[in-house]
Amino acid sequence: MAQQKSNGHKRLQDESLKAEQSGYIIGADIGGTSLRLALADLSGNILARSSTSTVGIRDAALIVSLISDGVESLLREQALRLDSVRAIAAGAPGITDPAEGVVIATSYLMGWRNVPLRALLEEALGVPAAVDNDVNLAALGESLAGAAKGVDNFVFIAIGTGIGAGIILNGHLFRGNGWSAGEIGYMLVPGTSEQPTERHKPGALEEVAGGEGAKAQWRSRWDQSRTSLSKDAIASEIFDHAADGNPLAQEVLELSARTLAYAIYNIWLVLNCDLFVLGGSVGLHPALRDAAHRILATRRIRVEPRVISSSLGPDAQLMGAIFLAIETAKTRFLVTTP
Amino acid sequence: MAQQKSNGHKRLQDESLKAEQSGYIIGADIGGTSLRLALADLSGNILARSSTSTVGIRDAALIVSLISDGVESLLREQALRLDSVRAIAAGAPGITDPAEGVVIATSYLMGWRNVPLRALLEEALGVPAAVDNDVNLAALGESLAGAAKGVDNFVFIAIGTGIGAGIILNGHLFRGNGWSAGEIGYMLVPGTSEQPTERHKPGALEEVAGGEGAKAQWRSRWDQSRTSLSKDAIASEIFDHAADGNPLAQEVLELSARTLAYAIYNIWLVLNCDLFVLGGSVGLHPALRDAAHRILATRRIRVEPRVISSSLGPDAQLMGAIFLAIETAKTRFLVTTP
Repeated sequence: MAQQKSNGHKRLQDESLKAEQSGYIIGADIGGTSLRLALADLSGNILARSSTSTVGIRDAALIVSLISDGVESLLREQALRLDSVRAIAAGAPGITDPAEGVVIATSYLMGWRNVPLRALLEEALGVPAAVDNDVNLAALGESLAGAAKGVDNFVFIAIGTGIGAGIILNGHLFRGNGWSAGEIGYMLVPGTSEQPTERHKPGALEEVAGGEGAKAQWRSRWDQSRTSLSKDAIASEIFDHAADGNPLAQEVLELSARTLAYAIYNIWLVLNCDLFVLGGSVGLHPALRDAAHRILATRRIRVEPRVISSSLGPDAQLMGAIFLAIETAKTRFLVTTP
Repeated sequence: MAQQKSNGHKRLQDESLKAEQSGYIIGADIGGTSLRLALADLSGNILARSSTSTVGIRDAALIVSLISDGVESLLREQALRLDSVRAIAAGAPGITDPAEGVVIATSYLMGWRNVPLRALLEEALGVPAAVDNDVNLAALGESLAGAAKGVDNFVFIAIGTGIGAGIILNGHLFRGNGWSAGEIGYMLVPGTSEQPTERHKPGALEEVAGGEGAKAQWRSRWDQSRTSLSKDAIASEIFDHAADGNPLAQEVLELSARTLAYAIYNIWLVLNCDLFVLGGSVGLHPALRDAAHRILATRRIRVEPRVISSSLGPDAQLMGAIFLAIETAKTRFLVTTP
């Protein structure tokens, strides 16, 4: 009996392996400004990718139809049929329940509440789907193929328009009781406002240190006689300007870096993890990383954590989605095959 | 063969069970002001206990001899011999490596550095020993027999002279890469100093919110015309005074509670855990708990965490040490029996 079972199991694995080798998956990264898609094989090699603007789009059904159209284009481009796709996984910019496949709440930018994204994707594409928080997927990406490969405990901090963290503990994503572990955009440190945050507004830390925060700090200090840079500059332009030696831009960089360093320090006190990986369009700026590291070094930490840049860069979220899709393809196949 | 193995294993378990039923363990809680000992059976029932002052004692060897003397007294009192003791476990007030049995660093009060406490205890008593951080043991105590029984994710916050946290994630103590997870006495929140902490000095959060912090805040505000309480009052007296309606004491309570609430909020953002258990001589004060809870409620958290008092009270650390000693007795017995 045990022997039979084992043989049956082996056959299943062989078939599974064959199908895996012949199938494909889709990774999707749903952002506030763009939707990025990748078609990959079951080893994670990307065959094709696409990007579409999502600026101004808040409706989940519209996002799903953009994904559906994008997947069709990618498949057409590669002369593949939809039935060769084994699974799709999508990262959503908000608190996500991966067990139920529901996006509980996105940030003030998109305003989603309890969107059954997994079901919507499965209905639209007819393939197994999985969803998770985008920053969690980025942490997974860095953990499996990026700057934190093989590191059991680390924190990925995504700094773009807002700020969020993905936490890997004992080699696994730590999500918290309400799936919102790592929502550090609301963290209170010296220099942040103590006023409770209004709904649909940036968090206390984001007001100072995120992309929006840096822009706001720049606008409030801007003085034509002290800079050649536009009052409407974005964070990366301001940080470039600081690196070029402009004192006004350096003030804004210093403020961003100090609040970020304090947030990292507080997370380190709680988790005592060795490694922080900075990602996101703003977090990838080397001037921010170096300034944060310099400030952190003044805290007299017994064993200082490393603060490094994401090695996957803007692809971290997408790579995480690809890994989740591969996992989904494997799991769902074994479960649903007779 | 498998059958034989199974029988052999059963015999070992039976013998182990018999020895467990007949043996005893010692739990020790090493504090900055007192050493507390308990003699318990292998079900955790306390048969006898003792307490000795440790005020002014900084030498580890002296603490170990106090423990050794205390254990002898407890055994004599119960007409028991040392060879009936299966194990001892001790909680130390500092960063502790339980794997190596070494106290890496205690707070500014005792000043221990790399003390091989487990080896010292085993040498002094001749029984298997285990050591851990006292706040971690308190969290373990609350998890197994206290206010957090059966809760998989929670944070125990001990507020005495200083402030520290024990973190239970997925039902297990989370200790961090350098064994210092939960060292939140250094946390930076609005209202704490941004100056890096000097060695042998309280952390930023402790300067405002711990027992020493509350005393310092009281002294700096004290005005004979506004209070009948002594300038040298301790935190619990100040909080009692606040509960009685004294505005000056209420200022100090409010400041302690606000910084504590901010620290809880920051930990909640990182871990998203449902439950915070407050313990320690200062943390057990209901006025502090209620004020912190009121301030936390203003933060507009989607699903607010519960903030409750430790149910084991001053025994939390000791109960954790008892559980660790029982675990040690079971593990060491199975390992060393032929």
